[in-house]
Amino acid sequence: MNFIKTLDRPALEALGIEGFAYGYADRVRFGELDALNHVNNAVYLRWFENIRVRYVQDYGLTRYGAPGDPQLVVRRVTADYFAPVLQNAEYVLTARTTLVKPSSFVMEYGLFVEGRRVASGEAVGVSLTSDGTARQPHKPEAIRAMVDRDGAATEGM
Amino acid sequence: MNFIKTLDRPALEALGIEGFAYGYADRVRFGELDALNHVNNAVYLRWFENIRVRYVQDYGLTRYGAPGDPQLVVRRVTADYFAPVLQNAEYVLTARTTLVKPSSFVMEYGLFVEGRRVASGEAVGVSLTSDGTARQPHKPEAIRAMVDRDGAATEGM
Amino acid sequence: MNFIKTLDRPALEALGIEGFAYGYADRVRFGELDALNHVNNAVYLRWFENIRVRYVQDYGLTRYGAPGDPQLVVRRVTADYFAPVLQNAEYVLTARTTLVKPSSFVMEYGLFVEGRRVASGEAVGVSLTSDGTARQPHKPEAIRAMVDRDGAATEGM
Amino acid sequence: MNFIKTLDRPALEALGIEGFAYGYADRVRFGELDALNHVNNAVYLRWFENIRVRYVQDYGLTRYGAPGDPQLVVRRVTADYFAPVLQNAEYVLTARTTLVKPSSFVMEYGLFVEGRRVASGEAVGVSLTSDGTARQPHKPEAIRAMVDRDGAATEGM
Repeated sequence: MNFIKTLDRPALEALGIEGFAYGYADRVRFGELDALNHVNNAVYLRWFENIRVRYVQDYGLTRYGAPGDPQLVVRRVTADYFAPVLQNAEYVLTARTTLVKPSSFVMEYGLFVEGRRVASGEAVGVSLTSDGTARQPHKPEAIRAMVDRDGAATEGM
Repeated sequence: MNFIKTLDRPALEALGIEGFAYGYADRVRFGELDALNHVNNAVYLRWFENIRVRYVQDYGLTRYGAPGDPQLVVRRVTADYFAPVLQNAEYVLTARTTLVKPSSFVMEYGLFVEGRRVASGEAVGVSLTSDGTARQPHKPEAIRAMVDRDGAATEGM
Repeated sequence: MNFIKTLDRPALEALGIEGFAYGYADRVRFGELDALNHVNNAVYLRWFENIRVRYVQDYGLTRYGAPGDPQLVVRRVTADYFAPVLQNAEYVLTARTTLVKPSSFVMEYGLFVEGRRVASGEAVGVSLTSDGTARQPHKPEAIRAMVDRDGAATEGM
Repeated sequence: MNFIKTLDRPALEALGIEGFAYGYADRVRFGELDALNHVNNAVYLRWFENIRVRYVQDYGLTRYGAPGDPQLVVRRVTADYFAPVLQNAEYVLTARTTLVKPSSFVMEYGLFVEGRRVASGEAVGVSLTSDGTARQPHKPEAIRAMVDRDGAATEGM
């Protein structure tokens, strides 16, 4: 099998991508293009979501539905578009946490085609109890992973 | 026929929505929900795109493909999520231009459920020649519409 | 407010559409187009799903999550494409049940642009207990609605 | 880089999948789930489209927009669902042409999770001139690829 594997810092650096410790390569699919013949603007937000959902599982923030695990909610997303992405383009998508607070975090995304950054994104996420009624602090090992692997700054702890 | 009609300022005010002169009502569809049982974060960006594309046609910025018409490109989008939106919810989506420059503009979006703002968004758009190689100034009547109907600020002109 | 309202048999006949008692009008959105500049083939299946989900609620088959209500599962879908559907096209989408069995049903969909049928679809649905482990017979009032409103044939009951 | 690579007949057979000479492995993404917590029915049709678009390029039917190349249009699609597909599931998607006529073809799709077929699909495609006004016969090398690699039957030639 050869499902998309995540790329670590050395693998990304070998592709000329600095500053990220988590990413994967994928390829534009036909249905992601719009009538202007490049990847639709809203699709980037799906891509950022795709890598975010894998990241939070891999970094130990949540396992989606395991008892006691927090519910992660997105409060804000942004995307900046630098150059269009075309049919069949192979891209590398990266993610890192830039800031951790006790029960929230800020992530940054990078989208690269042929080693060049074509888009960036940001998301602000909040950790809630599974019933969504209160904040739930991050697990210590998740904080450690974000700080150690990504070099995330911390605030309020 | 009863396709979604756009709502003007008085119609929106009658629904308790202030500050917008352009919007429409729609309803959440099943496929817009995600596994968390509310509207998926990325879907909001599709909604903002939907109203943006109608707006730029209705305000006269472009007719998409008519000869001499500019190509509008999005440089940045943001979305802020205040409350989840649920299955079958009826919502009102609004748009306005807040700032016009000679060949760019900033738009704001509002999403309302039962008169309450549940999300906001922003987009920065740029007007290019149809081949995408240079900036193309907005048409005077489009500028007029953004200023007169929306109260957009102007800069650099 | 003017959210899309469902059209009944007389309203559809007034639009030149025969044989259906349930439908609504909507308009193609930008993000539904693909790189060929017409509505993407997979989007039709979303549209059929949209009307199916509204239909099964309106005809009383299920209320999605109400205690004791069945879980409806799709076993098969088909779509036939007769003509492309273009940007901004206003369309009428219709649905009817053609065959009801004790715990399953066959639906047909019609897509019309300017009174002309541009696509058709079919879906085979099964009614399961809410935990999905066994068949659950349709509610009598739902069967009655499918037979009386749509003229659905019955089998095995 | 490790973008999804296509799997040939021996690679598929090593995964316990018989009868296909073309496929790839991928993994369910969060945004492909719906409120029922499994892959949305309409998403399968996107997946079939994804592999179809890669297939027709790899088998030489068209290069999408190269001068003289045909425009391929889908006339009919079907999907049969045997078992739900869940979050994070790794799947293998396969495609083959079962029947070739001078300017049309019938494809079959298979979706496998842990070696078990969970869905099937079919598509009928037609080859048109690039302006869409007339049928355009398949290229001889594309016919050869479909017959030699997939064992497609031929009719009318």
